[in-house]
Amino acid sequence: MVYKKVNLTGSSTESWEDAAMEAVERAETTLENVKWVEVQGRGIELANVDEPEYQTEVEVAFEIEDTGGMS
Amino acid sequence: MVYKKVNLTGSSTESWEDAAMEAVERAETTLENVKWVEVQGRGIELANVDEPEYQTEVEVAFEIEDTGGMS
Amino acid sequence: MVYKKVNLTGSSTESWEDAAMEAVERAETTLENVKWVEVQGRGIELANVDEPEYQTEVEVAFEIEDTGGMS
Amino acid sequence: MVYKKVNLTGSSTESWEDAAMEAVERAETTLENVKWVEVQGRGIELANVDEPEYQTEVEVAFEIEDTGGMS
Amino acid sequence: MVYKKVNLTGSSTESWEDAAMEAVERAETTLENVKWVEVQGRGIELANVDEPEYQTEVEVAFEIEDTGGMS
Amino acid sequence: MVYKKVNLTGSSTESWEDAAMEAVERAETTLENVKWVEVQGRGIELANVDEPEYQTEVEVAFEIEDTGGMS
Amino acid sequence: MVYKKVNLTGSSTESWEDAAMEAVERAETTLENVKWVEVQGRGIELANVDEPEYQTEVEVAFEIEDTGGMS
Amino acid sequence: MVYKKVNLTGSSTESWEDAAMEAVERAETTLENVKWVEVQGRGIELANVDEPEYQTEVEVAFEIEDTGGMS
Amino acid sequence: MVYKKVNLTGSSTESWEDAAMEAVERAETTLENVKWVEVQGRGIELANVDEPEYQTEVEVAFEIEDTGGMS
Amino acid sequence: MVYKKVNLTGSSTESWEDAAMEAVERAETTLENVKWVEVQGRGIELANVDEPEYQTEVEVAFEIEDTGGMS
Amino acid sequence: MVYKKVNLTGSSTESWEDAAMEAVERAETTLENVKWVEVQGRGIELANVDEPEYQTEVEVAFEIEDTGGMS
Amino acid sequence: MVYKKVNLTGSSTESWEDAAMEAVERAETTLENVKWVEVQGRGIELANVDEPEYQTEVEVAFEIEDTGGMS
Repeated sequence: MVYKKVNLTGSSTESWEDAAMEAVERAETTLENVKWVEVQGRGIELANVDEPEYQTEVEVAFEIEDTGGMS
Repeated sequence: MVYKKVNLTGSSTESWEDAAMEAVERAETTLENVKWVEVQGRGIELANVDEPEYQTEVEVAFEIEDTGGMS
Repeated sequence: MVYKKVNLTGSSTESWEDAAMEAVERAETTLENVKWVEVQGRGIELANVDEPEYQTEVEVAFEIEDTGGMS
Repeated sequence: MVYKKVNLTGSSTESWEDAAMEAVERAETTLENVKWVEVQGRGIELANVDEPEYQTEVEVAFEIEDTGGMS
Repeated sequence: MVYKKVNLTGSSTESWEDAAMEAVERAETTLENVKWVEVQGRGIELANVDEPEYQTEVEVAFEIEDTGGMS
Repeated sequence: MVYKKVNLTGSSTESWEDAAMEAVERAETTLENVKWVEVQGRGIELANVDEPEYQTEVEVAFEIEDTGGMS
Repeated sequence: MVYKKVNLTGSSTESWEDAAMEAVERAETTLENVKWVEVQGRGIELANVDEPEYQTEVEVAFEIEDTGGMS
Repeated sequence: MVYKKVNLTGSSTESWEDAAMEAVERAETTLENVKWVEVQGRGIELANVDEPEYQTEVEVAFEIEDTGGMS
Repeated sequence: MVYKKVNLTGSSTESWEDAAMEAVERAETTLENVKWVEVQGRGIELANVDEPEYQTEVEVAFEIEDTGGMS
Repeated sequence: MVYKKVNLTGSSTESWEDAAMEAVERAETTLENVKWVEVQGRGIELANVDEPEYQTEVEVAFEIEDTGGMS
Repeated sequence: MVYKKVNLTGSSTESWEDAAMEAVERAETTLENVKWVEVQGRGIELANVDEPEYQTEVEVAFEIEDTGGMS
Repeated sequence: MVYKKVNLTGSSTESWEDAAMEAVERAETTLENVKWVEVQGRGIELANVDEPEYQTEVEVAFEIEDTGGMS
């Protein structure tokens, strides 16, 4: 069993949890077997937005099939 | 005055705050003089749960009596 | 264009987001051009408070004028 | 010449070396020009397994073609 | 559900895996629900030993009962 | 809006800037919406090269479409 | 032979050495076989004290018996 | 003699050196006794710029007068 | 309540404690409500001095007024 | 009593332990009083070798004589 | 095959690349088989120099002979 | 001008300062142009000593001649 991690950053005007889940849900639209998430960092974007945006950077870990793409 | 820190991880389907407080409240059932908490890391468990679980790892600092157990 | 970062810690009995925004809002009362925030750390103060206080330490980045104070 | 790194975690009931090589071999089934591996961390899974599983997290570095997919 | 981590260092003249498992087995003689291990560091003791001793420092994570000791 | 980061290492006999831009330009041949780059590390390769090669390891951040591949 | 580390913080109005030894001596009142100490961090408390207090956070390593408590 | 460090980020389309010196020169327009600089991080801004901008984050250390502002 | 941290380095031919307190005392000549100090690093200057100088780099945390300067 | 550390990287097709011991044994051909080893990192070389080579980077600590070379 | 790393800092009024190569070239006057360099940190010296000096701290890795000095 | 750093650990029953200076003085018996010291870590040895020994690990930086040994 081999796991792979990809690094995603989600954002939300509500909370850091919502921002993280935006990234998880995006991953789950394409990836099977998403297993866990580790938070790498968080911030707030203030400059180019209408209202403050919470941003959460996560590593999303998923189990990869025995064959198939990995780049 | 000597402080001791123990490493706990709490979880909650609501938020990282609730997950942290689950660990603090568990500590306070046994420990006197809990003073402060430092967050070490956070993640989300997705694999073996009904719905995503926010997890918060904390160091809980408490003041230890002049005598008594510490292992 | 030069950015400067200052290190602030805000607190809130509600959440780590509110604690961060308390620091951001305090900065914006004095600083122009606040652009983004990076979270450095979080904790919970339990000792000298009526109820647990979430604390968020942030670096607040702002664009500095071409001239004027910086100490 | 550009290298890319992907983050994989392999597991083995034998050793951390075997766990790392499981990840390398899985990568080599899809990727050309795998060059080197850097170990990021290791652990042992005890909960949902029949016997303890050594886990090794690695960054696998490979040389990417001048054109073609990268996501 | 709250997890606790304790920091142990095991040693072995054979390998870093054996050294880690020495610490895990010692923990399991006293602790219920040991779930996973994270390796913090490794070394080799050469000075006060007959033959080189591999040492592995681990954080052992276990699920704590709802009540009972924690110091 | 979700961002993804990929880890690339470019090289150049001229400078660390050129090495970084080699990686960025390679990424831009395949990826839309490349937004920013964070430098992870730099070195100089001396062994298997005619003249010293500056190497820059970067995380390239890009905005991912709402659907489509991510592995 | 298995070592365990516990995290303690001592304080002293004299020096960081005295603060560290306060924690060591407190540990030795309960623990057998204390072997070495690693300093994790130091600070000075100024707010709720009559005079500045040097604080030293240490990991105290001790050899644990083959049986007996560990939580 | 007491030194103070302030955190600045400069940018340049030429190089990371120029970006660092932009921050140093801006600091020297206001601060006396600038002594040395430590580089904290570097990146490249690609999104909201005409051409790629090298960015260098630095800590600028300067000797502070015995009296006078410090906030 | 918002805290701010400033980064200072003090020096002394006596000890790292004295070096730290030189920085704290300098800060207290200008800042109200200095609360605590975190040590970031220490060294010894040998080159341009008559006798070795212990240097301690500290983050000095103070509570900032609801209004007033912050740059 | 003063200890010195030198940084060595050994390699082996067998294991990370063997790779570390290759470095230790090389050190012991020249250095007296080798006391302990701390592992800094590990990897696997795949590119310019017949079969995968485990590499272990170690700090080798040894006690230095009161006089004699040190460069 | 055992590699050794030595820690050198070079300086140059031109660039961080030149500063690094000054250290590499100095190493190559004495050491055989210099293989690669890892950059540890960079700064700019402003105080005791005629014009700003870029400084690059590097680990220089070289292959050591099977016998001969190492201190 | 090229600087080299060597890693030494001194010990003293008095203080961490004395332990550091023991290492510096030992270095100065062999090395010319010792310029500065950076503290890497400190601990206390309790096991194989008559009384607690403060240990300070330092990087000692010195300017190296244009020619001559470096291994």
